[in-house]
Amino acid sequence: MSTLPFASLAAIHAALADLPGPDVPSIRAARDRNARLTKPPQALGRLEDLAIWYAGWRGTDRPAIAAPQIVIFAGNHGVAARGVSAFPPAVTAQMVANFEAGGAAVNQLAKVAGARFDVVALQLDRPTADITEGAALTEDALCAAMSAGWRAVDPGADLFVAGEMGIGNTTAAAAMAASLFGGAAADWTGRGTGLDDARLAAKAAVVDTARARHAGAAGQGLETLRCLGGREIAAMAGAILRARQLSIPVVLDGFICCAAAAALAVERPGALDHAVAGHMSAEAGHGRLLQAMGKMPLLQLDMRLGEGSGAALAIGILRGAVACLSGMATFDEAGVSGA
Amino acid sequence: MSTLPFASLAAIHAALADLPGPDVPSIRAARDRNARLTKPPQALGRLEDLAIWYAGWRGTDRPAIAAPQIVIFAGNHGVAARGVSAFPPAVTAQMVANFEAGGAAVNQLAKVAGARFDVVALQLDRPTADITEGAALTEDALCAAMSAGWRAVDPGADLFVAGEMGIGNTTAAAAMAASLFGGAAADWTGRGTGLDDARLAAKAAVVDTARARHAGAAGQGLETLRCLGGREIAAMAGAILRARQLSIPVVLDGFICCAAAAALAVERPGALDHAVAGHMSAEAGHGRLLQAMGKMPLLQLDMRLGEGSGAALAIGILRGAVACLSGMATFDEAGVSGA
Repeated sequence: MSTLPFASLAAIHAALADLPGPDVPSIRAARDRNARLTKPPQALGRLEDLAIWYAGWRGTDRPAIAAPQIVIFAGNHGVAARGVSAFPPAVTAQMVANFEAGGAAVNQLAKVAGARFDVVALQLDRPTADITEGAALTEDALCAAMSAGWRAVDPGADLFVAGEMGIGNTTAAAAMAASLFGGAAADWTGRGTGLDDARLAAKAAVVDTARARHAGAAGQGLETLRCLGGREIAAMAGAILRARQLSIPVVLDGFICCAAAAALAVERPGALDHAVAGHMSAEAGHGRLLQAMGKMPLLQLDMRLGEGSGAALAIGILRGAVACLSGMATFDEAGVSGA
Repeated sequence: MSTLPFASLAAIHAALADLPGPDVPSIRAARDRNARLTKPPQALGRLEDLAIWYAGWRGTDRPAIAAPQIVIFAGNHGVAARGVSAFPPAVTAQMVANFEAGGAAVNQLAKVAGARFDVVALQLDRPTADITEGAALTEDALCAAMSAGWRAVDPGADLFVAGEMGIGNTTAAAAMAASLFGGAAADWTGRGTGLDDARLAAKAAVVDTARARHAGAAGQGLETLRCLGGREIAAMAGAILRARQLSIPVVLDGFICCAAAAALAVERPGALDHAVAGHMSAEAGHGRLLQAMGKMPLLQLDMRLGEGSGAALAIGILRGAVACLSGMATFDEAGVSGA
């Protein structure tokens, strides 16, 4: 039996206590280089901040994005039996097959981004416990799922996206957000794959019940993840944490990805310093969640698909930002007059 | 002596009177295909509308973006002598050299987008007339510049971006916007490459003088372009019009590009149906201009560089949208259950 990278809660806590930071000399060098490039000061707007941030995590003032990786984690949720999704639970496994065959949206976006693409299905025949009745995961199951995330990250990647598939998982994410940041269940509950008003209200009631059932987890990152999350959500958290250990910058996707990430940030402030928000989705709670996390999205295109799609699309923005920093001529090199 | 494609104002009017529309059967087929793809309805948000729009202009329900083209037009402006820019006019030619050497921001973004990149410098040693004193261009010069734009469009391109370089051209664009859509000069005047408050106020006064000098052009597209524009601005308008003749969709860039495009739309409503707004820049008047044109930007990243940079970055968004429409499996193909 192999030892899990996150063999225990203590191991996860130890990882969170020992996070590498960005390389400060590289940030300084990138900032200096950026100031000398052939453009008016700040004329590339957020691209300049992004590129300097990326340079810090990669430890060079002239980085490139050559090997992005997208991993989709899939899991099933006991709470799906409560009618919280427009689609049946069988769709999780069917979509995993679709990912593997290259037929989903994220497959096309991964190709456009030139990204390595992997799928990790987590015991789809074994849904987590219904979160209105019990904890989604035992401690062992949490460690196993986070370890699956840990293992999925390619140490050679230079940018990482965690996506997900799991019928019922916007319900889990809404309950997690309410547990992590407070507020009414209805404020965090959205239409997911397409609920009507009546089913949306019923879903909010389920979220409220789940949150009340696990009131002891309120304000706690890992305990919220264990009680209200799910296998694919815990795996995303494990992968995002592993990316930090490897100094691989992360592009966060939508509501569910951000709920997973937020669990880390609540457990350990600063745990998402290596992550940017790829987009703001149309799922109701996502804007609020990004605000609670202090993350400003790169894109806002009313997407609400999950499966890493918004983050995959945002890879191109980051790549453009980094290409400008690393490839542009300076005023001196180009013989262009200053202001 | 070769005949110009836009040999006279009459020829430009004739082109505007004879614009091809999108292919309606392709729009219908793309919409039908989109409805059957493996995702909840509307889950790709604006990407779905973009892909269907693109499909219509390309006349197929499974298009691809394989040959985008970015052309930078450069020109000099007599009004630059009035101190409206933070940079000296010599920078226009210096930046043309930088574009040709591959050192500018747009070069890096064009590479990331896999786009053909061309530069067209328009009589840089012959600035247009100072628009506070006379018309920027004669009719002949307008026709010549628009013809240069016409010629720059590769008929084999499947997406087109017109960018610009021209010290002083945010002043021309602000005067054009005020002439086309009314409103106070100050509402359309921004800091360009980086003016302080005092110089910004002086620039607004210059814009106001120019607009008053050419009050007869108010509300008229081509006459505004001739009196208040410039060679590179007219060339952009000519190129965008040419792209329409060729059914090549266009991604609009920032304030100056949009002023050029708006001249076409004011002269002939619907003339920009083949164009999307790539981004909303940080230049003060751009948001207002997009609103007047009825265009919602794809990106908003506080860029304000011009040279096609925002539109170049947005190519990746459009490519992702089109890739999803054309590459995704349908529910039937993938064996995924419906809602």
